Amino acid sequence: MNQKIIVTGGTGFIGQHTVVDLLERGHEVIVPTSRKGDHQIEGATYILCDLTDPSAMKDLVEEVRADTLVHIAWRAAISGLWGAPENTTWLQASLALGRAFLDAGGKRIALCGSCGEYDWTSGMCIEDVTPLRPNTIYGASKVSVMHGLTAMCEVAGASLVTGRPFFIYGPREHESRLTAYVIKSLLNGKDAECSHGMQLRDYSHVADVGRGMSALAVSDLTGEYNIGSGEAVRVKDVILEIAKEVGRPDLVKIGARAAPAFEPALIVADMSKTRASELDWEPRFTLESGVADTITWFRQYG
Amino acid sequence: MNQKIIVTGGTGFIGQHTVVDLLERGHEVIVPTSRKGDHQIEGATYILCDLTDPSAMKDLVEEVRADTLVHIAWRAAISGLWGAPENTTWLQASLALGRAFLDAGGKRIALCGSCGEYDWTSGMCIEDVTPLRPNTIYGASKVSVMHGLTAMCEVAGASLVTGRPFFIYGPREHESRLTAYVIKSLLNGKDAECSHGMQLRDYSHVADVGRGMSALAVSDLTGEYNIGSGEAVRVKDVILEIAKEVGRPDLVKIGARAAPAFEPALIVADMSKTRASELDWEPRFTLESGVADTITWFRQYG
Repeated sequence: MNQKIIVTGGTGFIGQHTVVDLLERGHEVIVPTSRKGDHQIEGATYILCDLTDPSAMKDLVEEVRADTLVHIAWRAAISGLWGAPENTTWLQASLALGRAFLDAGGKRIALCGSCGEYDWTSGMCIEDVTPLRPNTIYGASKVSVMHGLTAMCEVAGASLVTGRPFFIYGPREHESRLTAYVIKSLLNGKDAECSHGMQLRDYSHVADVGRGMSALAVSDLTGEYNIGSGEAVRVKDVILEIAKEVGRPDLVKIGARAAPAFEPALIVADMSKTRASELDWEPRFTLESGVADTITWFRQYG
Repeated sequence: MNQKIIVTGGTGFIGQHTVVDLLERGHEVIVPTSRKGDHQIEGATYILCDLTDPSAMKDLVEEVRADTLVHIAWRAAISGLWGAPENTTWLQASLALGRAFLDAGGKRIALCGSCGEYDWTSGMCIEDVTPLRPNTIYGASKVSVMHGLTAMCEVAGASLVTGRPFFIYGPREHESRLTAYVIKSLLNGKDAECSHGMQLRDYSHVADVGRGMSALAVSDLTGEYNIGSGEAVRVKDVILEIAKEVGRPDLVKIGARAAPAFEPALIVADMSKTRASELDWEPRFTLESGVADTITWFRQYG
């Protein structure tokens, strides 16, 4: 069924892929954005507004009267994302937006959560099993939004589904983040200084994550679903894959910088629940093809 | 050290005991309330205001400039508390209040949480162990506030401590709740229609819970602490204790009504963490003395 869908963050790193996928699936897509002009996709409607202004968002949802809200927008200092003060602004803005959307008659919310909601001491992150015990400001803010929207949707008789991305790389990644930093350094012939790289992480190409959010939004699923690869990959192996693809392994300096003080050994998505579900989604990229795609983008636009 | 402490809900069921205890401990207590005139305690300062109005609360915290905020206020339909829509209003109001208090330089928040934050399928509720997986609107709203204030306090360099009460009875209990209903019925010579009563619950006298919140507020503790008895008591045994005390066991009709559809068999506080802590608190009432005290109050004022 053709739906009218609001996608917040639809001009961003993840959300633009969500917009493309929803348009391909035949839905009407509205993107509220404070950055009109950036990354517009043909067929979507962009509306200039400030997502952290509750009254502006109230006006918007009342005017648009969408069926579904896909909430991805979350703007915090990328380099210090886990601890950025702006996280709490987005926490309150997200709840205000959800409330306004439901008050305007909205019937479904797809929320972009985070692996940071889980207790990382568990390593393996399993929906409905691993405790939600975040130890970052980002994770606490995301899990607060999830519980808050759960309550609001229950009150409104609406449904909520939460997608939980893990570690994301891809075109337009901020250069302060690991894979973009390594790619840009190597493409520019500069050393890429890395930590020991023995941390195990679950990596996904951003297009797969964006498509995961759209698939969840148009599904009938409720509850939480991991959007990852299900594979634990050494950070070092991602770096070496980039080096191989760019052809500059000589520039990679493993162990040249200390790992952050708090750095769990393992963070990986258990993908059993998502795979066993009716979700019309599977990753299109392997680590190899995803890294190659990302390098191609950075060669052209980075 | 003498502190200036705001107590929201300070005219309510739990909070009035918190106010009394804080005054006895020598602190300055300010109570924002929309019900000025009700239940005022000598020595506390009452300020008329609407706690769900963010700008009013912002003005209040900026004027008062308290050291500590004890946040107990939460006004939802008592009879349908677990599912009341107002829970989400108090969720947003609580986050707005916390933000305003921290922005005004506040350094410590003591939050009144709930046993409803825990996954009740676990039965035994252990802080930092039992997953926080609420299955009520009330529980989801409370846990959302806890995570949200955790993030905000971390940003502000302030400390947060959360007290989690379990099942509460005592003077001024709303008559739609079990113990007050049974006491009033029996005192009025009417039948008290109860469910099978085999559910195991952790009961506390409201004064002990209120004093638990004040003890937490003035302690140096952070994180979450159960405020219960640590004892699982059959609901039926509480009812029979009331019947014995009133002297009308003939009016108690066990099994006369169906138990609610969702009714976990066991909800009990593990009190190990609270007892092992430095908290200057222990319950003053046993079930017997607490029930007797409550009946005395209802005879006089109920």
